[in-house]
Amino acid sequence: MLTYTFSSTDTAPLYQQLYRFIREDIAAGVLAAGVKLPSKRNFAKNLGISTITVENAYEQLIAEGYLYTLPRKGFFVTDIGNGLSVRRERIRVQECGVRTKQKKYLADFTSNQTCKEQFPFSVWAKLMRTVLKEDREGLMINAPCAGILPLRAAIAGHLKEFRGVEVEPGQIVIGAGTEYLYGLLLQLLGMEKCYGVENPGYHKIYKIYKSHRVACSCVEMDEAGVRISGLEEKKVDVVHISPSHHFPTGIVMPVSRRYELLGWAAKREGRYIIEDDYDSEFRLTGKPVPSLQSIDVQEKVIYMNTFTKTLSSTVRISYMVLPKHLAERFLEQLSFYSCTVSNFEQYVLAAFIKEGYFEKHINRMRKYYHEKRDLLLKQIGDSGLADCCSISEEDAGVHFLMEVNTELSDDEVCTALEREGIKVSSVAQYYMENAGKKEHIFVMNYSSLEEANMKETIRKLEKLFVK
Amino acid sequence: MLTYTFSSTDTAPLYQQLYRFIREDIAAGVLAAGVKLPSKRNFAKNLGISTITVENAYEQLIAEGYLYTLPRKGFFVTDIGNGLSVRRERIRVQECGVRTKQKKYLADFTSNQTCKEQFPFSVWAKLMRTVLKEDREGLMINAPCAGILPLRAAIAGHLKEFRGVEVEPGQIVIGAGTEYLYGLLLQLLGMEKCYGVENPGYHKIYKIYKSHRVACSCVEMDEAGVRISGLEEKKVDVVHISPSHHFPTGIVMPVSRRYELLGWAAKREGRYIIEDDYDSEFRLTGKPVPSLQSIDVQEKVIYMNTFTKTLSSTVRISYMVLPKHLAERFLEQLSFYSCTVSNFEQYVLAAFIKEGYFEKHINRMRKYYHEKRDLLLKQIGDSGLADCCSISEEDAGVHFLMEVNTELSDDEVCTALEREGIKVSSVAQYYMENAGKKEHIFVMNYSSLEEANMKETIRKLEKLFVK
Repeated sequence: MLTYTFSSTDTAPLYQQLYRFIREDIAAGVLAAGVKLPSKRNFAKNLGISTITVENAYEQLIAEGYLYTLPRKGFFVTDIGNGLSVRRERIRVQECGVRTKQKKYLADFTSNQTCKEQFPFSVWAKLMRTVLKEDREGLMINAPCAGILPLRAAIAGHLKEFRGVEVEPGQIVIGAGTEYLYGLLLQLLGMEKCYGVENPGYHKIYKIYKSHRVACSCVEMDEAGVRISGLEEKKVDVVHISPSHHFPTGIVMPVSRRYELLGWAAKREGRYIIEDDYDSEFRLTGKPVPSLQSIDVQEKVIYMNTFTKTLSSTVRISYMVLPKHLAERFLEQLSFYSCTVSNFEQYVLAAFIKEGYFEKHINRMRKYYHEKRDLLLKQIGDSGLADCCSISEEDAGVHFLMEVNTELSDDEVCTALEREGIKVSSVAQYYMENAGKKEHIFVMNYSSLEEANMKETIRKLEKLFVK
Repeated sequence: MLTYTFSSTDTAPLYQQLYRFIREDIAAGVLAAGVKLPSKRNFAKNLGISTITVENAYEQLIAEGYLYTLPRKGFFVTDIGNGLSVRRERIRVQECGVRTKQKKYLADFTSNQTCKEQFPFSVWAKLMRTVLKEDREGLMINAPCAGILPLRAAIAGHLKEFRGVEVEPGQIVIGAGTEYLYGLLLQLLGMEKCYGVENPGYHKIYKIYKSHRVACSCVEMDEAGVRISGLEEKKVDVVHISPSHHFPTGIVMPVSRRYELLGWAAKREGRYIIEDDYDSEFRLTGKPVPSLQSIDVQEKVIYMNTFTKTLSSTVRISYMVLPKHLAERFLEQLSFYSCTVSNFEQYVLAAFIKEGYFEKHINRMRKYYHEKRDLLLKQIGDSGLADCCSISEEDAGVHFLMEVNTELSDDEVCTALEREGIKVSSVAQYYMENAGKKEHIFVMNYSSLEEANMKETIRKLEKLFVK
């Protein structure tokens, strides 16, 4: 309801103060033409004043033409048709616009956004209805800090079936996105530790550590992944990696390096490995790569994954699997936090996994991305690009690398394509330092690319690259 | 059909009791390997409990390997073989149990849980259907870091109408709970600053600051709220307060102290006030208290509020209003973060506010709490408690204070009541240090109290307190 604050220093009677407040709001367009004002009784109650005061104010506003009444309907704002109020509204809108503008691209190869046609809307809607009808009690009971048990049990089941990872529901912590979980992990493992990230790598992880003011080192990679000697040199305590499919290079860490890493972690207490398995569901060909977590017997690996990649980038549910001693510590130290995902979404997702829809969805998405990738690669192969580009790392995840034979710098390529409505990034951009950068390799994330735009996109790439 | 009798003295949730019954029967061989269990629906009907309770019990048994499911066939007892597995399973069970147990109280005066009957399920369901049908495109587009514009605009409108606070949508940041937003604020304002919290006060805020390893000082209060001299002495940079209704003392900060606080903040660059307006919607009598934010002309106040209190403790959506220069800084420094609330819930809530349901809901809830409070106070007044208790701070929020004339210590009272299924906390427990503690004042948050349990609760309080 409308609320105004009366001044204790203003000597005008209350009804006049109220009259002025309402008049000013009408003049400013805050109260628009046709808006219904509160009933005298409710308004008086809300403002803690008498009904007669509201009545007097309304009377005056009616007398001056700011309000009109409709019998048995109430009090309404007159259309005073004022240009001033319109201008004021326009400025507001503009300010908002600046803060939220999102450019529309012909093709955005940097976006992790999922295709809206691929979201299982009808199943999701059905499960929502069921949950709302049958789980009302559960929906209203505060979730444990780590999430509702049915969802954690469903995820444990999924991990076992899909990833060969055997964990107990009690080790799983649900959170509103992996970014939030990183913050929790910093509190759990210690802000005084040195965190290592892959170089090149996903900038956001580095930014999150820096934003929390913790020590963060970039560790160079070779063809097998992050280098152990780099971890030792930079005195890293906790290393953050994606061994199943590195972004942006696409490297899959071989098993020898995995054991080396576990050996590194075992050497000193307090060393940990954060295994970010963000897109392991979308391995398109070849054998499944076992997770690092599944070969860890010393409780050194924290496994993380997200539903953002598999379901939709706008569904904010991720999870981490803590080794048992850390799960205990989490309960001791951090269980005062509330779970950041609403119960409703947790119950719907739990049902989605448990009833087999998630597996079906992943299979369908894998097929969809497979076909999209094949189509895109075929069109590239059939185009003039075939002679000046080479493709690699196309078997996993939803991006591949395209190395281009060009005299343009990476920046020039990105700028020229941006002008054509195509957004790309180069591998070089993902290096935190300058050493060892390779030029002319572009990261092609095709998850949000619309099939209808492929042809034109390739034509524009040809125009830039083919002599 | 299998039948179990639930204990009325057992405080574990029903699903855990059921889970234990079945587990014990499997371990004892009463339920043999391969036996089919009743369908969830029939079992629930037979036991007179909800389907979700049976489901939760089954879930846990499946997660722990006692049961397995066959698609379209049902639930079956696993062959657990020898005693070892039982022992091993028991360890697991215990671990899970520890992580999820939630004691069921006759009356929990410490809980912020909302009454499930009060949630607007049918409107919510209707809006969900509409959003799923009409906003599909919006649902799949990544939200700006601070949340979707329609929700921020709806909140700005609500703040203006309800709280007299004029802000632009661009100043509003949506997040998955105020706890998450505190973490963001630390990154925005600086981890090197000294944060001040009220003493006594809400422990969680103190814990969150400590968990982030930032300097955090407890500032003593007088009858007008936090003391300015305390802020100066302890070299506080950012003070975190709830001036509209302090927890647990119920103090409403008078306007003179508000201006003093703003003066304190204006004295030095980098000083800020975090105004936590967590339950201002539930002022039950008297005039509205203007927010600190609305009288701040120097961009020193960060206003925070949550839908957890008004809608449901299981809906994790909160927001903060940043002064303009901080809103700019947020965009520059922290916009790499994804918004932590799923689009879906953001769109539903935006419609809920915009279409007037939120205001209706608040009015209904206010009336509901008003009546509940009146009933509870009347029953206390009519009981023997009237002679040994005095009630204060009952006009705002959903808790009041009850000072008891007793020879028992606060700890003895809490322990004795806990045994009777009543959970209370005392004001003394909310002091971070020992100085100035008052004994025998108990905090009575009645939001989750069921009317049906009032009589028995009062009878038990009488038994303890009345000679």
